[in-house]
Amino acid sequence: MAKLSAQEQAKIKATANAMAEVAQVETMRHFRVSGLVADNKEQDSFDPVTIADRAAEKAMRAVLAKMRPDDAILGEEYGFQAGTSGLTWVLDPIDGTRGYISGTPTWGVLISVRDADGPFYGIIVQPHIGEQFIGGLGEAQLVSRNNVKPLLTSKNTDLGNATMLSTFPEIGSEIERAAFTDLARDVRLVRYGMDCYGYALLALGCVDLVVEAGLQSYDVQAPIAVVQAAGGVVTDWQGKPAHDGGRMLAAANADIHQSALEILRKASEN
Amino acid sequence: MAKLSAQEQAKIKATANAMAEVAQVETMRHFRVSGLVADNKEQDSFDPVTIADRAAEKAMRAVLAKMRPDDAILGEEYGFQAGTSGLTWVLDPIDGTRGYISGTPTWGVLISVRDADGPFYGIIVQPHIGEQFIGGLGEAQLVSRNNVKPLLTSKNTDLGNATMLSTFPEIGSEIERAAFTDLARDVRLVRYGMDCYGYALLALGCVDLVVEAGLQSYDVQAPIAVVQAAGGVVTDWQGKPAHDGGRMLAAANADIHQSALEILRKASEN
Repeated sequence: MAKLSAQEQAKIKATANAMAEVAQVETMRHFRVSGLVADNKEQDSFDPVTIADRAAEKAMRAVLAKMRPDDAILGEEYGFQAGTSGLTWVLDPIDGTRGYISGTPTWGVLISVRDADGPFYGIIVQPHIGEQFIGGLGEAQLVSRNNVKPLLTSKNTDLGNATMLSTFPEIGSEIERAAFTDLARDVRLVRYGMDCYGYALLALGCVDLVVEAGLQSYDVQAPIAVVQAAGGVVTDWQGKPAHDGGRMLAAANADIHQSALEILRKASEN
Repeated sequence: MAKLSAQEQAKIKATANAMAEVAQVETMRHFRVSGLVADNKEQDSFDPVTIADRAAEKAMRAVLAKMRPDDAILGEEYGFQAGTSGLTWVLDPIDGTRGYISGTPTWGVLISVRDADGPFYGIIVQPHIGEQFIGGLGEAQLVSRNNVKPLLTSKNTDLGNATMLSTFPEIGSEIERAAFTDLARDVRLVRYGMDCYGYALLALGCVDLVVEAGLQSYDVQAPIAVVQAAGGVVTDWQGKPAHDGGRMLAAANADIHQSALEILRKASEN
């Protein structure tokens, strides 16, 4: 990670916090409001985007323009904007827009900042519940309405006793689904449909694994920062860095990561 | 429905409210606390029960012993207790224990009261978020921390524009999964893993369909009362009453119910 002064680190945290605040307002303004229109971004499937995604990303970009004008930005809705500082903010205004338009409490705002080595600070915000899962730059905490709680991943090292979360069966190629199914056979419990909230639960020590595929870089950066800060291990399905997206294996600790990696690697090689 | 005086109706609501309060306390006491032990109720699968399920049901039964001693009780953990009033309280202290032990915000406490015709008042409580979805005896409302909002199902009558929730692919026989898949092809969006919170979102007008199978009577009574009070239509997959459990088709309105019923009926006949 780039060497950042204490002052610079504090500035980054304050900026991320200010972005979380404005994104919370913009996403909640349209949440569960009838008549919200979801435009489809895809030809052959349903990949919705709403006025809330766009408004939240715009509001976060306005914060950056004011507080960190020299940093680059990569956002899901408005793409890449170059910077000069060597730092890039990676933003997903609503991760889980399908869940958002269905009223679920498992979508989130993803805010992270990276350098050449990957993300080093991130926040997963769940505005409806009022939770912020924060990780990096010496922090690992869940800030909720009346409470601050440390984030710390599970110490369970037994795959047979593990809980795994995923967005499957919705995503992934045939090979990826087969590899996932191989792994699913060996764990105690599999749950679906948690969107980015799954990574928050991993950081909180409630589950042992989150396994996904078909991801974009803006889907994974904040989760990686938060899970790693809480003690977790995150790679792709070959054990390589996952911060550019694709296949993700996020585990509570090195042992459970190794056990899951062996199965996913073998099953997804072909 | 049995004819109940205004005073009797008020007593029933006050009792349900008192039960929701104690169940909220007992379930939150153990939620996301590390070291929570989940006992398995099944030989061949993982059907967990925790000290929280048991404590919450005991606390609710204690409220009934005090406030409604003549009513019968059917609870998931402690079975049936006969009564003399003709009314039966049907309780599921934690619907979605798998989600509960994974830290998700989609499990709920289910409280309902029925007579010979079925459930006529119910509450779906989500203690972590702090939401109570209440339906029946002239009420249909979401009571949250700082807010009361009416429950009203969606007016969308177009299956091709519908969002469907389910706990599939986890549950159901081969025929049931095939019927569900037939229906899933015709809707716009399918989401998984919401537990009883799916019925709450249906009552709130956020989604159009909840389709499940393999249910118990304590899983369905409160959802039926809440969804019907909000304007929805609930039957089994043949169009018959669903309050004894089994296969459930809960729809936002009669039109979308009819469209989904035709597909499920045909596909599950064999």
